[in-house]
Amino acid sequence: MSLLVVGSVALDSIFTPFGETADALGGSAVYFSVAGALLHPVTVVGVVGKDYPMPLLERLAPRGIDWSGVEHAEGESFRWKGKYSYDLQSRETLETRLGVFADFQPKLPPATRDAEYVFLGNIDPELQLRVLEQVHQPKLVACDTMNYWIQGKKPSLMRLLEQVDVLMVNDGEARELSGDWNIHRAGRWILRHGPDRVVIKQGEYGALLMDRENTFYVPAFPLEEVFDPTGAGDAFAGGFMAYLARAGSTDSVDLRRAMIYGATMGSFAVSQFGIRGFESITLSDVEDRARAFRELTQVEMAERLA
Amino acid sequence: MSLLVVGSVALDSIFTPFGETADALGGSAVYFSVAGALLHPVTVVGVVGKDYPMPLLERLAPRGIDWSGVEHAEGESFRWKGKYSYDLQSRETLETRLGVFADFQPKLPPATRDAEYVFLGNIDPELQLRVLEQVHQPKLVACDTMNYWIQGKKPSLMRLLEQVDVLMVNDGEARELSGDWNIHRAGRWILRHGPDRVVIKQGEYGALLMDRENTFYVPAFPLEEVFDPTGAGDAFAGGFMAYLARAGSTDSVDLRRAMIYGATMGSFAVSQFGIRGFESITLSDVEDRARAFRELTQVEMAERLA
Repeated sequence: MSLLVVGSVALDSIFTPFGETADALGGSAVYFSVAGALLHPVTVVGVVGKDYPMPLLERLAPRGIDWSGVEHAEGESFRWKGKYSYDLQSRETLETRLGVFADFQPKLPPATRDAEYVFLGNIDPELQLRVLEQVHQPKLVACDTMNYWIQGKKPSLMRLLEQVDVLMVNDGEARELSGDWNIHRAGRWILRHGPDRVVIKQGEYGALLMDRENTFYVPAFPLEEVFDPTGAGDAFAGGFMAYLARAGSTDSVDLRRAMIYGATMGSFAVSQFGIRGFESITLSDVEDRARAFRELTQVEMAERLA
Repeated sequence: MSLLVVGSVALDSIFTPFGETADALGGSAVYFSVAGALLHPVTVVGVVGKDYPMPLLERLAPRGIDWSGVEHAEGESFRWKGKYSYDLQSRETLETRLGVFADFQPKLPPATRDAEYVFLGNIDPELQLRVLEQVHQPKLVACDTMNYWIQGKKPSLMRLLEQVDVLMVNDGEARELSGDWNIHRAGRWILRHGPDRVVIKQGEYGALLMDRENTFYVPAFPLEEVFDPTGAGDAFAGGFMAYLARAGSTDSVDLRRAMIYGATMGSFAVSQFGIRGFESITLSDVEDRARAFRELTQVEMAERLA
């Protein structure tokens, strides 16, 4: 089952208490595909400037990623500079330079229009809508967004929500979008506005998957060392979508399994700077971590007490 | 298996965005026993002033609680007054009046000294140590503490830790005690200082149980309405300990089950003001909620991918 991601291919400069990077490979589509390709081939659509080190990206990223849908435009690549707090719980954006992303008009190569699993990374909801218009008959569409679009492009975002199957956001975004601080009511609000399912990521507390009947929780992995939270949410999305594409399924059991693989990829992402958490990870490592994840919550109940 | 709790029997005045109470029945031993007694008989040791409405407490609390170890002293009962923030995420202590608790010297009635499951509620660690000296041969001792004792009585607290099997604290307390903001390293630190197990409660994010080999997570219940977080941690402890006392076990499987029953009781506690969340709850309700809890995290994995 073909898997397509549309999102940013960027250069990140990141300051954490443990070190810093300048112009490191990053962006939502990069984290998504680097994680997802461990499970299933991924096709990327995005844009970079002439300055982007595509050969480096192609060498570092695992096989199974088709970068041919990444447009090379005149101008500078998208750059993001951010600084994390001492406990990595919050971050501050120091600089955002859109570069070639400012005029990006996503055009899907003909071969990608039959994609069955589609992830719309966090870009302008009007562009996300334009991507959807070009996809013929997707089996599952998931999208991300952020406070910037919730505040500035809410009508477009609401139109988008009516057309996606899964919204994947963090808890702050869910609260801001719904105007409700209770995360479960916020989730219900989202489910009343289009998507059949919502995934709410809660950083070091894990993530939850809600549909109209049920909630499923996956914790975060108990890591004693977290180096860089950048990209964890996109890596989560990559693991989630790639597992479903691999399984060729959108049923409830596979969605729960996909949450485990999403959380697994998130845990690899935060364990190193940038995309380096995925260097030398094999499918067998992924599977071991996924099983360890499941063990974190498994319990057999005894006979009913009453 | 006999279950003993030593802790406060107090009068709480609580302000939340949803209402307020004045001099409501509260205190760690009250929440613990009201929750625990749904699963197993509880004996309470504590102290109240002549002003405490014991007949009201005995009428409201479920059967199966032996209050005869609660001393009636001259003076006023322990009173706590607190105010919660709009989102119930933080609270401010407005007033603490120790009253008869200031001179409390716990003396265990002879019949309670053979208790097999003992919970030391959040009181001065020197008093917690004095209780332990009076217990003959407990099978499992768990204790709580708080920032006030971590800051003011750390040497006594460290001596206590060497003598308990399980420390039950919230994440802020674990961080403060260990001096480490990473919750998993904080847990490891605690495990190096005495207890074989640590339970770290994370409020709306659930709780985790760590031993030297494994971590187990239980989420919080997806409640769309939370009215009053007061006592949730003590109710958790009550469900946890009472399940173990009922099962007559301290093995790993039952400890995981006990976490589910602890979380179940915590979810009842926050759903109403004060101890009213336990009014008219039956063992069958507890069991239904516990099973629903387990469903929140259950997933069957497919064949290994590699």
